Amino acid sequence: MIIGKVTGSIFSTRKSEKLVGNKFMIVHPEESMSSGRGDLVAIDIIGAGIGEKVLVALGSAARIGCDMPEAPVDAAIVGIIDEGQEV
Amino acid sequence: MIIGKVTGSIFSTRKSEKLVGNKFMIVHPEESMSSGRGDLVAIDIIGAGIGEKVLVALGSAARIGCDMPEAPVDAAIVGIIDEGQEV
Amino acid sequence: MIIGKVTGSIFSTRKSEKLVGNKFMIVHPEESMSSGRGDLVAIDIIGAGIGEKVLVALGSAARIGCDMPEAPVDAAIVGIIDEGQEV
Amino acid sequence: MIIGKVTGSIFSTRKSEKLVGNKFMIVHPEESMSSGRGDLVAIDIIGAGIGEKVLVALGSAARIGCDMPEAPVDAAIVGIIDEGQEV
Amino acid sequence: MIIGKVTGSIFSTRKSEKLVGNKFMIVHPEESMSSGRGDLVAIDIIGAGIGEKVLVALGSAARIGCDMPEAPVDAAIVGIIDEGQEV
Repeated sequence: MIIGKVTGSIFSTRKSEKLVGNKFMIVHPEESMSSGRGDLVAIDIIGAGIGEKVLVALGSAARIGCDMPEAPVDAAIVGIIDEGQEV
Repeated sequence: MIIGKVTGSIFSTRKSEKLVGNKFMIVHPEESMSSGRGDLVAIDIIGAGIGEKVLVALGSAARIGCDMPEAPVDAAIVGIIDEGQEV
Repeated sequence: MIIGKVTGSIFSTRKSEKLVGNKFMIVHPEESMSSGRGDLVAIDIIGAGIGEKVLVALGSAARIGCDMPEAPVDAAIVGIIDEGQEV
Repeated sequence: MIIGKVTGSIFSTRKSEKLVGNKFMIVHPEESMSSGRGDLVAIDIIGAGIGEKVLVALGSAARIGCDMPEAPVDAAIVGIIDEGQEV
Repeated sequence: MIIGKVTGSIFSTRKSEKLVGNKFMIVHPEESMSSGRGDLVAIDIIGAGIGEKVLVALGSAARIGCDMPEAPVDAAIVGIIDEGQEV
């Protein structure tokens, strides 16, 4: 998993039916975790707010670990990092 | 998922039978999402047009999430980003 | 998927039994698709020749999409790009 | 797999239920293994301490190989490298 | 798959039970295949020696293709490249 900061969200009206009802958050990886990796779009099963540091699962872990095994999802916010921690 | 812009499409006459009937779009990732990543070829289940910004699912999410679990597909356009949004 | 050019093939006499009978082609990704990615070795289910531009599926899509679900294969040539197209 | 050094851990109180009970360790990949890759967060099934060199499995191998097939986990510490070895 | 050279091996006494009995080889990817990729640790089902050029399968292909579907393995040596070939 990687840690990143939620920087915004995006809306998509025309999308796969399987994505209906999900929020799409833009996550900016922490500097120490960002080598060769830009921002990404993750669904959010936790209710993260903009500016919060979050734990993001990538790949099949996002889809299967968030009980959406049949959805076209490859990244998910699965935790909010407790405040006051150095990352 | 990543966001990118559809820049074109490609044709392949000799291809896996499982790919017949699909459109192959070339997607150029948004600058903020492009670190270490070039253009990619994605199937399109939404009907995106050239120039549109799209949401792309990668890996097994593309194949399984687009109801093509047995097809050699690793990237799919699964949403069109609503206009007027900063990404 | 990515597009690349077949630049050669390699032989491996001592290999996993599950790979017997496959051709291993070396694919050089197109410049626009090559960021952070070098050449790769893909099996070929289409019959591509050296110098041809091909569509390559990566990850589990290669294995499952080419009807080799139990083989140690993570990349496969699944289409030949029609000539005369800009990529 | 890659080898890295455990540099710390992070806490997440609000997280996926499926992650409850896991430790989240921050792993800094060895220099020789770090090209294009920053730190990552891995669960720890071995009991690694800070400063130890560990073997990390990535992707579905982490989830399935650690008997958490339904959890949103994409990286796991699966071994501790014996001391005194050059990596 | 990628081609690399076996440069050494590592030992891990404290490790996942599912990894017991495996050899962990360090593989240095060929220059042409190394963009954005450092060395990696792969299990070896072929019996490669140090200095040999090998074919490495990555991701779920390693685990499933080597008959270890439940093991935390994401890279495996699945062939030895015949001598005298340019890669």
